[in-house]
Amino acid sequence: MTVAEGAASALRVPVELEGRSYDILIGRRLLDDPAAWQGLPRASSVVVVTNDTVAPLYADAVEDALRRALERPVSRIVLPDGEDHKDWPTLQSIFDGLLGSGCDRRTLLVALGGGVVGDMAGFAAACFMRGVPFVQVPTTLLAQVDSSVGGKTAINHPLGKNMIGAFHQPVRVLADLDVLRTLPRREVAAGLAEVIKYGPIADAAFLDWIEAHVDDLVALDPAALAHAVRRSCEIKADVVAQDEREGGLRAILNFGHTFGHAIEAGLGFGEWLHGEAVGCGMVMAADLSVRLGRLDPAELPRLERLVARAGLPVRGPRLGAARYLELMRHDKKAEAGEIRFVVLDGLGRAQVQPAPDALLVSEVIDAHC
Amino acid sequence: MTVAEGAASALRVPVELEGRSYDILIGRRLLDDPAAWQGLPRASSVVVVTNDTVAPLYADAVEDALRRALERPVSRIVLPDGEDHKDWPTLQSIFDGLLGSGCDRRTLLVALGGGVVGDMAGFAAACFMRGVPFVQVPTTLLAQVDSSVGGKTAINHPLGKNMIGAFHQPVRVLADLDVLRTLPRREVAAGLAEVIKYGPIADAAFLDWIEAHVDDLVALDPAALAHAVRRSCEIKADVVAQDEREGGLRAILNFGHTFGHAIEAGLGFGEWLHGEAVGCGMVMAADLSVRLGRLDPAELPRLERLVARAGLPVRGPRLGAARYLELMRHDKKAEAGEIRFVVLDGLGRAQVQPAPDALLVSEVIDAHC
Repeated sequence: MTVAEGAASALRVPVELEGRSYDILIGRRLLDDPAAWQGLPRASSVVVVTNDTVAPLYADAVEDALRRALERPVSRIVLPDGEDHKDWPTLQSIFDGLLGSGCDRRTLLVALGGGVVGDMAGFAAACFMRGVPFVQVPTTLLAQVDSSVGGKTAINHPLGKNMIGAFHQPVRVLADLDVLRTLPRREVAAGLAEVIKYGPIADAAFLDWIEAHVDDLVALDPAALAHAVRRSCEIKADVVAQDEREGGLRAILNFGHTFGHAIEAGLGFGEWLHGEAVGCGMVMAADLSVRLGRLDPAELPRLERLVARAGLPVRGPRLGAARYLELMRHDKKAEAGEIRFVVLDGLGRAQVQPAPDALLVSEVIDAHC
Repeated sequence: MTVAEGAASALRVPVELEGRSYDILIGRRLLDDPAAWQGLPRASSVVVVTNDTVAPLYADAVEDALRRALERPVSRIVLPDGEDHKDWPTLQSIFDGLLGSGCDRRTLLVALGGGVVGDMAGFAAACFMRGVPFVQVPTTLLAQVDSSVGGKTAINHPLGKNMIGAFHQPVRVLADLDVLRTLPRREVAAGLAEVIKYGPIADAAFLDWIEAHVDDLVALDPAALAHAVRRSCEIKADVVAQDEREGGLRAILNFGHTFGHAIEAGLGFGEWLHGEAVGCGMVMAADLSVRLGRLDPAELPRLERLVARAGLPVRGPRLGAARYLELMRHDKKAEAGEIRFVVLDGLGRAQVQPAPDALLVSEVIDAHC
């Protein structure tokens, strides 16, 4: 498989949502190709929201392409990098920048960065003047295969991750595979956690494929990446199209996330990468599925091995089971204090259900921390 | 016309929105009637968001009715009263309260208060865990006839009013006419500004009716109030059903608001009541319509007289035309720095259009300040 360069040869994954459908374009050399920016809503101005790590690498190229494609004024807002800045003061700095430069309801925002930038620029777009359009330009693997697709935006609250946010769909997602080459290895691994996730919850054959190509993915082979990003986006787009606002099905995308969020919150956001916590959380959630008699015990070491080969931790921090349970009760999936888990029904199928009993969950935690 | 008491005899105005339709119930003694609270979405808990002026008057009665009707835990968050608290720190205090008391995605919020409480509790409901249901219980005339209906929620930014917000429809609106009896005269007048508004923009016959009954309305006659609130809500519901997200038509509801927002922002939010600024702003917008040759000059003194009889100011503060223009360029309806006005096309019809020229607008400002 060869992967050609430029928008003309980009893979296109449509996200079908009534009145808000959009395309994910996946390919090489997309960012600086004006063709990738054609056909967007008419804008009065464009603001690129990025962070101080990504800006020096890609902001000039993106802005040049935007100016050529849209022929509108383009400006830039640079946020501090990191999950610990995914908070109100940083969001407020986006609003200050937008209002200070005379932006209006026709301003187009462009989120250029990883999941944090996408969540914050997306939430800013959701709230600014009650909603302006935005484009996601994910520059991490995790953002390309997960957070940039589906319209979830949010900031953190001291009492929980992503507690304040909105569903606000982008008008386009541009996943440029070349930008992944500047990614630290740890970030690549974190992204692979979400790629792996799609296998157990929705597509056992894709899990087989990942097992066969995990070394290529770790090595950032373009053809392997193109397939992994496309298949991940296809599965996510399919789930989101069926349940945009997470009334039911969409929650399966949180496989591993209940344990993972507890790890992130317990250590303090930013200590582990989100994908690292999810990698470890998937192993714990698979173990819970085994203990519930819903998953063949042989699949647990198989998944654990794959997570480890991707470069992800498979043992959680020793916070103690009681602390894990307390943190999980604050998870957004919890209802009336009842923790809810995504449980596998064999490989390739998942569903959300209440925690069976605290003792069983404690055993899982003790076994993996 | 007599107005019976209790939910069974309440007037019902449906707001038709695909997948998000809801009813406005208008009547006497609704708040403490459990029947008025039946048929809401299943909730895990209920939180009444109110302010320190309204809480001592109505919060106990509302909470008792909620407990009896829903049989769920009911708690209370009390905000400081006033437009100058319609900001992020106050919003954050709502999130702190919700998360601190273990609320989840099935928590129902109840906004008990005027427009500020409705805007803030509504925006909190829009953002908390990316959206929870809420009921509007407007306790001012202005909120009953305008701000509680249609799903606009927001907080202010130092650079502009309602700049940060969301469209989030309530699941019900309860407009209890009896609560208006505890309203200061100035607040009643402010509400009448929005009632009057519906005449010139949509229903000349309703304007005739208001002229004939303005003294009854000022005196809070229940039958007159019931008709005024119902007809106002009907017109607003009709406009919102056609254009929920203000792509076009809905903007006519902002008649008088471009000038009005400049008055509010120029004096500092909270100095004039919103309705007072709108009352004066409508006179200025009508004058602009006359100067554009779109409205019979005889209608201007007629509207000015009605606004004055309602107890509202008809002369704006002397900020200077240049300052007005600068403030209006930051209005949300502005596009690429071009101010947009709601202009009357004769009585009972309105449309939004760009400012004709700054000189004409300056003349209007100078004539009324």
